[in-house]
Amino acid sequence: MKKDDLNFWKEVSKKIIKNVENAISPYVGTKKANKIVMMGADGTPTKLIDIKAETEVIKVLKELEIPVTLISEEIGMLNLGDEPSTVYLVVDPLDGTTNAVKNMPAYGISIAIAKTQADKYPTINNVNIGFVKNFATGDLFRAVKGQGSFINDQKAVPSTIDKLNNSLVGAFIYGTNVKKLDYLCKRVRRMRIMGSVAIELCYVADMTYDAFIDLRDNLRIVDIAAAKLIVEEAGGIVSDLDNQTINGKLTVKDKTSILAASNKKLHEDILNVMGGL
Amino acid sequence: MKKDDLNFWKEVSKKIIKNVENAISPYVGTKKANKIVMMGADGTPTKLIDIKAETEVIKVLKELEIPVTLISEEIGMLNLGDEPSTVYLVVDPLDGTTNAVKNMPAYGISIAIAKTQADKYPTINNVNIGFVKNFATGDLFRAVKGQGSFINDQKAVPSTIDKLNNSLVGAFIYGTNVKKLDYLCKRVRRMRIMGSVAIELCYVADMTYDAFIDLRDNLRIVDIAAAKLIVEEAGGIVSDLDNQTINGKLTVKDKTSILAASNKKLHEDILNVMGGL
Repeated sequence: MKKDDLNFWKEVSKKIIKNVENAISPYVGTKKANKIVMMGADGTPTKLIDIKAETEVIKVLKELEIPVTLISEEIGMLNLGDEPSTVYLVVDPLDGTTNAVKNMPAYGISIAIAKTQADKYPTINNVNIGFVKNFATGDLFRAVKGQGSFINDQKAVPSTIDKLNNSLVGAFIYGTNVKKLDYLCKRVRRMRIMGSVAIELCYVADMTYDAFIDLRDNLRIVDIAAAKLIVEEAGGIVSDLDNQTINGKLTVKDKTSILAASNKKLHEDILNVMGGL
Repeated sequence: MKKDDLNFWKEVSKKIIKNVENAISPYVGTKKANKIVMMGADGTPTKLIDIKAETEVIKVLKELEIPVTLISEEIGMLNLGDEPSTVYLVVDPLDGTTNAVKNMPAYGISIAIAKTQADKYPTINNVNIGFVKNFATGDLFRAVKGQGSFINDQKAVPSTIDKLNNSLVGAFIYGTNVKKLDYLCKRVRRMRIMGSVAIELCYVADMTYDAFIDLRDNLRIVDIAAAKLIVEEAGGIVSDLDNQTINGKLTVKDKTSILAASNKKLHEDILNVMGGL
Protein backbone atom coordinates (compact mmCIF):
# COMPACT_ATOMS: atom_id res chain seq x y z
CA MET A 1 0.00 0.00 0.00
CA LYS A 2 1.31 3.48 -0.90
CA LYS A 3 1.97 6.00 1.82
CA ASP A 4 -0.96 8.24 0.80
CA ASP A 5 -3.27 5.24 0.79
CA LEU A 6 -1.99 4.14 4.19
CA ASN A 7 -2.62 7.54 5.70
CA PHE A 8 -6.06 7.76 4.12
CA TRP A 9 -7.16 4.38 5.48
CA LYS A 10 -5.66 5.04 8.90
CA GLU A 11 -7.80 8.18 9.13
CA VAL A 12 -10.89 6.25 7.98
CA SER A 13 -10.19 3.63 10.65
CA LYS A 14 -9.86 6.23 13.37
CA LYS A 15 -13.16 7.80 12.34
CA ILE A 16 -14.88 4.38 12.39
CA ILE A 17 -13.44 3.64 15.84
CA LYS A 18 -14.62 6.96 17.25
CA ASN A 19 -18.11 6.76 15.76
CA VAL A 20 -18.67 3.15 16.83
CA GLU A 21 -17.51 3.91 20.36
CA ASN A 22 -19.94 6.83 20.60
CA ALA A 23 -22.78 4.75 19.14
CA ILE A 24 -22.48 1.81 21.53
CA SER A 25 -21.62 3.61 24.75
CA PRO A 26 -25.28 4.27 25.76
CA TYR A 27 -25.95 0.52 25.47
CA VAL A 28 -23.03 -0.86 27.50
CA GLY A 29 -24.28 -2.72 30.58
CA THR A 30 -27.96 -2.47 29.56
CA LYS A 31 -30.51 -5.21 28.96
CA LYS A 32 -31.73 -3.75 25.68
CA ALA A 33 -28.20 -4.11 24.25
CA ASN A 34 -28.70 -7.88 24.44
CA LYS A 35 -31.93 -8.02 22.40
CA ILE A 36 -31.56 -10.39 19.44
CA VAL A 37 -32.58 -8.44 16.35
CA MET A 38 -31.58 -10.82 13.52
CA MET A 39 -29.26 -13.64 12.47
CA GLY A 40 -25.90 -12.42 11.24
CA ALA A 41 -24.21 -13.44 7.97
CA ASP A 42 -21.86 -15.60 10.03
CA GLY A 43 -24.79 -17.64 11.35
CA THR A 44 -24.77 -16.32 14.91
CA PRO A 45 -27.53 -14.21 16.47
CA THR A 46 -27.08 -10.46 16.17
CA LYS A 47 -27.70 -8.34 19.24
CA LEU A 48 -28.98 -4.76 19.16
CA ILE A 49 -25.60 -3.41 20.31
CA ASP A 50 -23.87 -5.27 17.41
CA ILE A 51 -26.16 -3.64 14.85
CA LYS A 52 -25.64 -0.20 16.40
CA ALA A 53 -21.89 -0.74 15.98
CA GLU A 54 -22.03 -2.10 12.41
CA THR A 55 -24.39 0.63 11.23
CA GLU A 56 -21.75 3.23 12.08
CA VAL A 57 -19.10 1.36 10.12
CA ILE A 58 -21.29 1.25 7.01
CA LYS A 59 -22.18 4.94 7.38
CA VAL A 60 -18.54 6.06 7.47
CA LEU A 61 -17.67 3.92 4.43
CA LYS A 62 -20.70 5.07 2.37
CA GLU A 63 -19.74 8.69 2.96
CA LEU A 64 -16.34 8.04 1.34
CA GLU A 65 -18.02 7.50 -2.05
CA ILE A 66 -15.13 5.33 -3.28
CA PRO A 67 -14.96 1.63 -4.11
CA VAL A 68 -14.37 -0.46 -0.99
CA THR A 69 -15.47 -3.90 0.18
CA LEU A 70 -16.64 -4.32 3.75
CA ILE A 71 -16.45 -7.75 5.39
CA SER A 72 -18.34 -7.70 8.67
CA GLU A 73 -20.05 -10.09 11.03
CA GLU A 74 -23.68 -9.18 10.49
CA ILE A 75 -23.76 -8.00 6.88
CA GLY A 76 -21.29 -10.55 5.49
CA MET A 77 -19.92 -8.72 2.44
CA LEU A 78 -20.86 -5.27 1.17
CA ASN A 79 -19.43 -3.73 -1.99
CA LEU A 80 -19.53 0.03 -2.01
CA GLY A 81 -18.79 2.39 -4.92
CA ASP A 82 -19.29 1.97 -8.66
CA GLU A 83 -16.13 0.12 -9.66
CA PRO A 84 -14.73 -3.18 -8.41
CA SER A 85 -12.80 -2.60 -5.22
CA THR A 86 -9.26 -3.60 -4.39
CA VAL A 87 -9.51 -2.47 -0.76
CA TYR A 88 -11.11 -4.80 1.79
CA LEU A 89 -12.08 -3.56 5.22
CA VAL A 90 -12.52 -6.50 7.56
CA VAL A 91 -14.31 -5.29 10.64
CA ASP A 92 -15.59 -6.83 13.82
CA PRO A 93 -17.55 -3.78 14.95
CA LEU A 94 -17.91 -5.17 18.48
CA ASP A 95 -15.73 -8.04 19.66
CA GLY A 96 -16.76 -9.23 23.12
CA THR A 97 -20.48 -8.45 22.82
CA THR A 98 -21.33 -10.44 25.96
CA ASN A 99 -18.80 -8.40 27.94
CA ALA A 100 -20.23 -5.14 26.62
CA VAL A 101 -23.75 -6.21 27.58
CA LYS A 102 -22.55 -7.18 31.07
CA ASN A 103 -20.19 -4.22 31.42
CA MET A 104 -17.12 -6.42 31.80
CA PRO A 105 -14.04 -4.42 30.85
CA ALA A 106 -12.93 -6.17 27.63
CA TYR A 107 -14.88 -5.32 24.49
CA GLY A 108 -13.96 -3.33 21.43
CA ILE A 109 -13.49 -3.02 17.71
CA SER A 110 -11.20 -4.77 15.25
CA ILE A 111 -10.41 -3.28 11.83
CA ALA A 112 -8.10 -4.94 9.30
CA ILE A 113 -7.43 -3.47 5.87
CA ALA A 114 -6.10 -5.44 2.92
CA LYS A 115 -5.25 -4.14 -0.54
CA THR A 116 -5.14 -6.74 -3.32
CA GLN A 117 -5.12 -7.22 -7.09
CA ALA A 118 -8.57 -6.85 -8.66
CA ASP A 119 -8.86 -10.55 -9.48
CA LYS A 120 -7.48 -12.01 -6.26
CA TYR A 121 -9.55 -12.66 -3.19
CA PRO A 122 -7.51 -11.57 -0.14
CA THR A 123 -6.43 -13.82 2.72
CA ILE A 124 -5.50 -12.80 6.25
CA ASN A 125 -1.89 -12.48 5.10
CA ASN A 126 -2.79 -9.63 2.75
CA VAL A 127 -3.73 -7.41 5.68
CA ASN A 128 -1.65 -4.19 5.64
CA ILE A 129 -3.21 -2.27 8.52
CA GLY A 130 -4.66 -3.46 11.83
CA PHE A 131 -6.44 -1.60 14.61
CA VAL A 132 -7.90 -3.07 17.81
CA LYS A 133 -9.36 -0.86 20.53
CA ASN A 134 -10.63 -1.93 23.94
CA PHE A 135 -13.44 0.58 24.47
CA ALA A 136 -13.65 -0.27 28.18
CA THR A 137 -10.07 0.75 28.95
CA GLY A 138 -9.25 3.01 26.01
CA ASP A 139 -6.25 0.85 25.02
CA LEU A 140 -5.53 1.14 21.29
CA PHE A 141 -3.37 -1.44 19.51
CA ARG A 142 -2.26 -0.80 15.92
CA ALA A 143 0.15 -2.04 13.29
CA VAL A 144 1.12 -1.37 9.69
CA LYS A 145 2.85 -4.21 7.84
CA GLY A 146 6.62 -3.76 8.07
CA GLN A 147 6.42 -0.93 10.60
CA GLY A 148 6.03 -2.69 13.97
CA SER A 149 3.17 -2.57 16.46
CA PHE A 150 2.09 0.03 18.95
CA ILE A 151 -0.02 0.15 22.09
CA ASN A 152 -1.20 3.67 22.92
CA ASP A 153 1.70 5.12 20.85
CA GLN A 154 4.35 3.04 22.65
CA LYS A 155 6.17 0.38 20.67
CA ALA A 156 4.73 -3.04 21.54
CA VAL A 157 7.32 -5.64 22.56
CA PRO A 158 6.40 -9.25 23.40
CA SER A 159 7.67 -11.01 26.52
CA THR A 160 10.81 -13.17 26.56
CA ILE A 161 9.35 -15.85 28.86
CA ASP A 162 9.93 -19.12 27.04
CA LYS A 163 8.33 -21.84 29.20
CA LEU A 164 4.65 -22.57 29.70
CA ASN A 165 5.12 -23.09 33.43
CA ASN A 166 6.25 -19.47 33.79
CA SER A 167 3.61 -18.08 31.48
CA LEU A 168 0.40 -16.16 31.69
CA VAL A 169 -1.73 -17.54 28.87
CA GLY A 170 -5.05 -16.39 27.51
CA ALA A 171 -6.81 -19.63 26.72
CA PHE A 172 -10.25 -20.22 25.24
CA ILE A 173 -10.53 -23.83 26.30
CA TYR A 174 -14.25 -24.30 26.76
CA GLY A 175 -16.72 -25.64 24.24
CA THR A 176 -14.10 -28.05 22.91
CA ASN A 177 -13.38 -31.76 22.82
CA VAL A 178 -9.64 -31.27 22.85
CA LYS A 179 -7.70 -33.72 24.99
CA LYS A 180 -4.51 -32.61 26.75
CA LEU A 181 -6.59 -29.88 28.34
CA ASP A 182 -5.56 -31.22 31.72
CA TYR A 183 -1.84 -31.05 30.80
CA LEU A 184 -2.23 -27.47 29.69
CA CYS A 185 -4.12 -26.44 32.82
CA LYS A 186 -1.68 -28.25 35.11
CA ARG A 187 1.46 -26.82 33.53
CA VAL A 188 0.52 -23.20 32.87
CA ARG A 189 1.46 -20.63 35.50
CA ARG A 190 -1.53 -18.34 35.08
CA MET A 191 -4.54 -18.45 32.82
CA ARG A 192 -6.98 -15.78 31.72
CA ILE A 193 -10.15 -15.70 29.64
CA MET A 194 -11.21 -12.07 29.37
CA GLY A 195 -13.80 -12.74 26.67
CA SER A 196 -12.48 -10.80 23.65
CA VAL A 197 -10.24 -12.70 21.25
CA ALA A 198 -9.13 -9.59 19.35
CA ILE A 199 -8.03 -7.78 22.51
CA GLU A 200 -6.46 -10.84 24.12
CA LEU A 201 -4.49 -11.68 21.00
CA CYS A 202 -3.09 -8.13 21.08
CA TYR A 203 -2.07 -8.77 24.70
CA VAL A 204 0.60 -11.11 23.27
CA ALA A 205 2.08 -8.18 21.35
CA ASP A 206 2.71 -6.00 24.40
CA MET A 207 3.74 -8.51 27.09
CA THR A 208 0.40 -8.53 28.93
CA TYR A 209 0.03 -12.19 27.96
CA ASP A 210 2.92 -14.52 27.17
CA ALA A 211 0.69 -16.51 24.84
CA PHE A 212 -2.86 -16.89 23.58
CA ILE A 213 -4.56 -20.07 22.54
CA ASP A 214 -8.01 -20.82 21.15
CA LEU A 215 -8.81 -24.53 21.03
CA ARG A 216 -12.35 -24.17 19.78
CA ASP A 217 -11.48 -24.47 16.05
CA ASN A 218 -14.30 -22.06 15.63
CA LEU A 219 -12.47 -18.76 15.57
CA ARG A 220 -13.44 -16.52 12.70
CA ILE A 221 -10.64 -15.22 10.49
CA VAL A 222 -12.45 -11.86 10.63
CA ASP A 223 -11.99 -11.70 14.41
CA ILE A 224 -8.22 -12.19 14.27
CA ALA A 225 -7.43 -10.37 11.01
CA ALA A 226 -6.15 -7.20 12.70
CA ALA A 227 -4.72 -8.77 15.86
CA LYS A 228 -2.67 -11.38 13.96
CA LEU A 229 -0.83 -8.57 12.14
CA ILE A 230 -0.38 -6.71 15.44
CA VAL A 231 1.18 -9.76 17.13
CA GLU A 232 3.42 -10.60 14.17
CA GLU A 233 4.59 -7.02 13.66
CA ALA A 234 5.56 -6.93 17.34
CA GLY A 235 7.67 -10.05 16.81
CA GLY A 236 5.32 -12.72 18.13
CA ILE A 237 4.74 -16.12 16.53
CA VAL A 238 1.30 -17.13 15.23
CA SER A 239 0.12 -20.48 13.86
CA ASP A 240 -2.82 -22.81 14.14
CA LEU A 241 -2.68 -25.67 16.65
CA ASP A 242 -1.13 -27.98 14.07
CA ASN A 243 1.72 -25.50 13.70
CA GLN A 244 0.51 -24.50 10.23
CA THR A 245 0.43 -20.96 8.89
CA ILE A 246 -3.01 -19.42 9.21
CA ASN A 247 -4.00 -18.34 5.73
CA GLY A 248 -7.79 -18.19 5.77
CA LYS A 249 -9.75 -16.01 3.38
CA LEU A 250 -11.13 -12.73 4.62
CA THR A 251 -14.73 -13.92 4.84
CA VAL A 252 -17.12 -14.28 7.76
CA LYS A 253 -17.29 -18.04 7.19
CA ASP A 254 -13.58 -18.98 7.37
CA LYS A 255 -12.51 -20.36 10.74
CA THR A 256 -9.38 -21.62 12.47
CA SER A 257 -7.72 -22.49 15.75
CA ILE A 258 -4.85 -20.31 16.95
CA LEU A 259 -1.70 -20.35 19.04
CA ALA A 260 0.06 -17.03 19.39
CA ALA A 261 3.20 -16.83 21.50
CA SER A 262 5.64 -14.08 22.39
CA ASN A 263 8.57 -16.00 20.99
CA LYS A 264 9.51 -19.16 19.09
CA LYS A 265 10.65 -21.15 22.16
CA LEU A 266 7.42 -20.61 24.05
CA HIS A 267 5.43 -21.40 20.90
CA GLU A 268 7.27 -24.74 20.66
CA ASP A 269 6.90 -25.48 24.36
CA ILE A 270 3.13 -25.02 24.19
CA LEU A 271 2.81 -27.10 21.01
CA ASN A 272 4.73 -29.86 22.76
CA VAL A 273 2.47 -29.78 25.80
CA MET A 274 -0.57 -29.81 23.55
CA GLY A 275 0.81 -32.77 21.63
CA GLY A 276 0.84 -30.79 18.41
CA LEU A 277 4.46 -31.52 17.49
CA MET B 1 -23.00 -5.03 65.17
CA LYS B 2 -24.83 -1.90 66.40
CA LYS B 3 -25.88 0.78 63.94
CA ASP B 4 -23.32 3.32 65.21
CA ASP B 5 -20.57 0.71 64.93
CA LEU B 6 -21.71 -0.21 61.43
CA ASN B 7 -21.62 3.38 60.28
CA PHE B 8 -18.23 3.95 61.90
CA TRP B 9 -16.65 0.91 60.20
CA LYS B 10 -18.28 1.69 56.87
CA GLU B 11 -16.62 5.12 56.96
CA VAL B 12 -13.27 3.57 57.94
CA SER B 13 -13.59 1.15 55.02
CA LYS B 14 -14.33 3.93 52.55
CA LYS B 15 -11.29 5.85 53.76
CA ILE B 16 -9.07 2.77 53.36
CA ILE B 17 -10.42 2.16 49.84
CA LYS B 18 -9.77 5.75 48.81
CA ASN B 19 -6.26 5.90 50.28
CA VAL B 20 -5.18 2.54 48.85
CA GLU B 21 -6.49 3.49 45.41
CA ASN B 22 -4.50 6.74 45.48
CA ALA B 23 -1.38 4.97 46.74
CA ILE B 24 -1.27 2.28 44.06
CA SER B 25 -2.40 4.24 41.02
CA PRO B 26 1.12 5.53 40.11
CA TYR B 27 2.33 1.91 40.04
CA VAL B 28 -0.37 0.32 37.87
CA GLY B 29 1.12 -1.01 34.61
CA THR B 30 4.72 -0.34 35.68
CA LYS B 31 7.66 -2.72 36.00
CA LYS B 32 8.70 -1.45 39.42
CA ALA B 33 5.27 -2.45 40.79
CA ASN B 34 6.29 -6.05 40.22
CA LYS B 35 9.53 -5.94 42.24
CA ILE B 36 9.54 -8.63 44.94
CA VAL B 37 10.30 -6.90 48.23
CA MET B 38 9.70 -9.65 50.80
CA MET B 39 7.84 -12.88 51.54
CA GLY B 40 4.35 -12.28 52.89
CA ALA B 41 2.87 -13.87 56.00
CA ASP B 42 0.83 -16.12 53.71
CA GLY B 43 4.02 -17.59 52.25
CA THR B 44 3.77 -15.93 48.83
CA PRO B 45 6.16 -13.28 47.50
CA THR B 46 5.18 -9.69 48.18
CA LYS B 47 5.43 -7.19 45.34
CA LEU B 48 6.17 -3.50 45.79
CA ILE B 49 2.61 -2.53 44.76
CA ASP B 50 1.21 -4.90 47.45
CA ILE B 51 3.27 -3.22 50.17
CA LYS B 52 2.23 0.24 48.97
CA ALA B 53 -1.39 -0.89 49.32
CA GLU B 54 -1.03 -2.56 52.73
CA THR B 55 0.91 0.36 54.20
CA GLU B 56 -2.10 2.61 53.59
CA VAL B 57 -4.43 0.18 55.34
CA ILE B 58 -2.23 0.10 58.43
CA LYS B 59 -1.90 3.88 58.44
CA VAL B 60 -5.66 4.45 58.46
CA LEU B 61 -6.17 1.90 61.26
CA LYS B 62 -3.35 3.28 63.42
CA GLU B 63 -4.83 6.76 63.21
CA LEU B 64 -8.07 5.47 64.73
CA GLU B 65 -6.31 4.82 68.07
CA ILE B 66 -8.84 2.15 69.04
CA PRO B 67 -8.45 -1.61 69.51
CA VAL B 68 -8.74 -3.42 66.19
CA THR B 69 -7.14 -6.53 64.68
CA LEU B 70 -5.96 -6.41 61.09
CA ILE B 71 -5.64 -9.65 59.11
CA SER B 72 -3.83 -8.99 55.85
CA GLU B 73 -1.81 -10.86 53.25
CA GLU B 74 1.65 -9.49 53.92
CA ILE B 75 1.58 -8.68 57.62
CA GLY B 76 -0.44 -11.69 58.75
CA MET B 77 -2.05 -10.39 61.94
CA LEU B 78 -1.61 -6.98 63.57
CA ASN B 79 -3.24 -6.01 66.87
CA LEU B 80 -3.70 -2.28 67.27
CA GLY B 81 -4.73 -0.35 70.39
CA ASP B 82 -4.17 -1.06 74.09
CA GLU B 83 -7.01 -3.46 74.87
CA PRO B 84 -7.91 -6.82 73.30
CA SER B 85 -9.94 -6.20 70.18
CA THR B 86 -13.30 -7.63 69.20
CA VAL B 87 -13.24 -6.11 65.71
CA TYR B 88 -11.36 -7.90 62.96
CA LEU B 89 -10.59 -6.18 59.68
CA VAL B 90 -9.76 -8.78 57.06
CA VAL B 91 -8.19 -7.02 54.14
CA ASP B 92 -6.73 -8.02 50.82
CA PRO B 93 -5.25 -4.62 50.00
CA LEU B 94 -4.72 -5.58 46.36
CA ASP B 95 -6.45 -8.60 44.90
CA GLY B 96 -5.28 -9.30 41.34
CA THR B 97 -1.72 -8.00 41.73
CA THR B 98 -0.62 -9.52 38.41
CA ASN B 99 -3.44 -7.71 36.64
CA ALA B 100 -2.50 -4.41 38.28
CA VAL B 101 1.14 -4.84 37.24
CA LYS B 102 0.05 -5.62 33.66
CA ASN B 103 -2.72 -3.04 33.60
CA MET B 104 -5.42 -5.60 32.98
CA PRO B 105 -8.76 -4.20 34.11
CA ALA B 106 -9.57 -6.41 37.13
CA TYR B 107 -7.75 -5.58 40.35
CA GLY B 108 -8.94 -4.07 43.59
CA ILE B 109 -9.40 -4.19 47.31
CA SER B 110 -11.41 -6.50 49.57
CA ILE B 111 -12.37 -5.50 53.11
CA ALA B 112 -14.37 -7.73 55.45
CA ILE B 113 -15.22 -6.73 59.01
CA ALA B 114 -16.20 -9.15 61.75
CA LYS B 115 -17.22 -8.36 65.32
CA THR B 116 -16.90 -11.22 67.79
CA GLN B 117 -16.82 -12.10 71.49
CA ALA B 118 -13.45 -11.34 73.12
CA ASP B 119 -12.62 -15.02 73.58
CA LYS B 120 -13.82 -16.31 70.22
CA TYR B 121 -11.68 -16.34 67.11
CA PRO B 122 -13.89 -15.28 64.18
CA THR B 123 -14.66 -17.35 61.09
CA ILE B 124 -15.75 -16.13 57.68
CA ASN B 125 -19.36 -16.49 58.83
CA ASN B 126 -18.87 -13.78 61.47
CA VAL B 127 -18.30 -11.16 58.79
CA ASN B 128 -20.82 -8.31 59.13
CA ILE B 129 -19.60 -5.91 56.47
CA GLY B 130 -18.01 -6.53 53.08
CA PHE B 131 -16.57 -4.15 50.51
CA VAL B 132 -14.93 -5.07 47.18
CA LYS B 133 -13.85 -2.41 44.71
CA ASN B 134 -12.45 -2.93 41.21
CA PHE B 135 -10.05 0.00 40.95
CA ALA B 136 -9.74 -0.44 37.17
CA THR B 137 -13.44 0.12 36.50
CA GLY B 138 -14.56 1.92 39.64
CA ASP B 139 -17.18 -0.73 40.38
CA LEU B 140 -17.92 -0.93 44.11
CA PHE B 141 -19.67 -3.96 45.62
CA ARG B 142 -20.82 -3.86 49.24
CA ALA B 143 -22.99 -5.69 51.73
CA VAL B 144 -24.02 -5.55 55.37
CA LYS B 145 -25.29 -8.76 56.92
CA GLY B 146 -29.09 -8.85 56.72
CA GLN B 147 -29.32 -5.80 54.49
CA GLY B 148 -28.70 -7.12 50.97
CA SER B 149 -25.92 -6.34 48.51
CA PHE B 150 -25.28 -3.37 46.30
CA ILE B 151 -23.25 -2.64 43.20
CA ASN B 152 -22.61 1.10 42.73
CA ASP B 153 -25.64 1.87 44.92
CA GLN B 154 -27.97 -0.38 42.91
CA LYS B 155 -29.38 -3.46 44.58
CA ALA B 156 -27.43 -6.53 43.39
CA VAL B 157 -29.64 -9.36 42.10
CA PRO B 158 -28.19 -12.71 40.90
CA SER B 159 -29.23 -14.32 37.61
CA THR B 160 -32.01 -16.90 37.33
CA ILE B 161 -30.20 -19.08 34.78
CA ASP B 162 -30.26 -22.57 36.26
CA LYS B 163 -28.30 -24.80 33.85
CA LEU B 164 -24.56 -24.93 33.30
CA ASN B 165 -24.97 -25.12 29.52
CA ASN B 166 -26.64 -21.70 29.52
CA SER B 167 -24.20 -20.16 31.98
CA LEU B 168 -21.31 -17.78 31.98
CA VAL B 169 -19.00 -19.10 34.67
CA GLY B 170 -15.86 -17.63 36.16
CA ALA B 171 -13.63 -20.65 36.64
CA PHE B 172 -10.14 -20.85 38.07
CA ILE B 173 -9.33 -24.26 36.63
CA TYR B 174 -5.57 -24.10 36.16
CA GLY B 175 -2.92 -25.33 38.57
CA THR B 176 -5.17 -28.21 39.63
CA ASN B 177 -5.33 -31.96 39.38
CA VAL B 178 -9.07 -32.03 39.36
CA LYS B 179 -10.65 -34.52 36.99
CA LYS B 180 -13.97 -33.75 35.30
CA LEU B 181 -12.34 -30.58 34.00
CA ASP B 182 -13.20 -31.71 30.49
CA TYR B 183 -16.88 -32.19 31.41
CA LEU B 184 -17.03 -28.72 32.87
CA CYS B 185 -15.33 -27.13 29.86
CA LYS B 186 -17.49 -29.03 27.40
CA ARG B 187 -20.78 -28.25 29.10
CA VAL B 188 -20.40 -24.61 30.11
CA ARG B 189 -21.75 -21.97 27.72
CA ARG B 190 -19.12 -19.31 28.39
CA MET B 191 -16.10 -19.20 30.68
CA ARG B 192 -14.09 -16.33 32.04
CA ILE B 193 -10.93 -15.99 34.15
CA MET B 194 -10.42 -12.30 34.80
CA GLY B 195 -7.73 -12.83 37.44
CA SER B 196 -9.30 -11.41 40.62
CA VAL B 197 -11.22 -13.86 42.79
CA ALA B 198 -12.76 -11.14 44.98
CA ILE B 199 -14.14 -9.21 42.01
CA GLU B 200 -15.26 -12.29 40.10
CA LEU B 201 -17.05 -13.72 43.11
CA CYS B 202 -18.96 -10.43 43.38
CA TYR B 203 -19.90 -10.85 39.70
CA VAL B 204 -22.19 -13.68 40.88
CA ALA B 205 -24.07 -11.20 43.08
CA ASP B 206 -25.03 -8.85 40.26
CA MET B 207 -25.71 -11.21 37.32
CA THR B 208 -22.43 -10.55 35.50
CA TYR B 209 -21.51 -14.20 36.09
CA ASP B 210 -24.01 -16.99 36.64
CA ALA B 211 -21.49 -18.87 38.77
CA PHE B 212 -17.92 -18.83 40.01
CA ILE B 213 -15.76 -21.83 40.74
CA ASP B 214 -12.21 -22.18 42.05
CA LEU B 215 -10.88 -25.72 41.82
CA ARG B 216 -7.41 -25.01 43.13
CA ASP B 217 -8.24 -25.78 46.78
CA ASN B 218 -5.77 -23.03 47.46
CA LEU B 219 -8.06 -20.07 47.85
CA ARG B 220 -7.40 -17.99 50.93
CA ILE B 221 -10.34 -17.33 53.23
CA VAL B 222 -9.06 -13.76 53.43
CA ASP B 223 -9.58 -13.27 49.69
CA ILE B 224 -13.23 -14.33 49.76
CA ALA B 225 -14.25 -12.99 53.20
CA ALA B 226 -16.00 -9.90 51.82
CA ALA B 227 -17.21 -11.35 48.52
CA LYS B 228 -18.84 -14.39 50.12
CA LEU B 229 -21.06 -12.08 52.21
CA ILE B 230 -21.80 -9.99 49.11
CA VAL B 231 -22.92 -13.07 47.12
CA GLU B 232 -24.97 -14.51 49.97
CA GLU B 233 -26.66 -11.21 50.83
CA ALA B 234 -27.65 -10.90 47.15
CA GLY B 235 -29.28 -14.33 47.38
CA GLY B 236 -26.56 -16.47 45.80
CA ILE B 237 -25.48 -19.91 47.05
CA VAL B 238 -21.91 -20.52 48.27
CA SER B 239 -20.24 -23.78 49.29
CA ASP B 240 -16.98 -25.60 48.79
CA LEU B 241 -16.73 -28.19 46.01
CA ASP B 242 -17.89 -30.95 48.35
CA ASN B 243 -21.08 -28.97 48.94
CA GLN B 244 -19.98 -28.17 52.50
CA THR B 245 -20.42 -24.78 54.18
CA ILE B 246 -17.25 -22.72 54.04
CA ASN B 247 -16.43 -21.88 57.63
CA GLY B 248 -12.69 -21.16 57.63
CA LYS B 249 -11.06 -18.96 60.24
CA LEU B 250 -10.17 -15.39 59.33
CA THR B 251 -6.44 -16.03 59.00
CA VAL B 252 -4.04 -15.74 56.08
CA LYS B 253 -3.34 -19.48 56.26
CA ASP B 254 -6.85 -20.92 55.98
CA LYS B 255 -7.74 -22.09 52.48
CA THR B 256 -10.68 -23.62 50.62
CA SER B 257 -12.21 -24.39 47.25
CA ILE B 258 -15.39 -22.57 46.28
CA LEU B 259 -18.50 -22.86 44.18
CA ALA B 260 -20.75 -19.83 44.15
CA ALA B 261 -23.89 -19.88 42.06
CA SER B 262 -26.72 -17.44 41.41
CA ASN B 263 -29.31 -19.91 42.60
CA LYS B 264 -29.77 -23.33 44.14
CA LYS B 265 -30.63 -25.15 40.91
CA LEU B 266 -27.52 -23.96 39.09
CA HIS B 267 -25.42 -24.76 42.17
CA GLU B 268 -26.75 -28.35 42.07
CA ASP B 269 -26.29 -28.66 38.30
CA ILE B 270 -22.63 -27.65 38.54
CA LEU B 271 -21.98 -29.98 41.50
CA ASN B 272 -23.49 -32.80 39.45
CA VAL B 273 -21.28 -32.09 36.45
CA MET B 274 -18.24 -31.89 38.72
CA GLY B 275 -19.18 -35.22 40.30
CA GLY B 276 -19.48 -33.62 43.72
CA LEU B 277 -22.92 -34.94 44.51
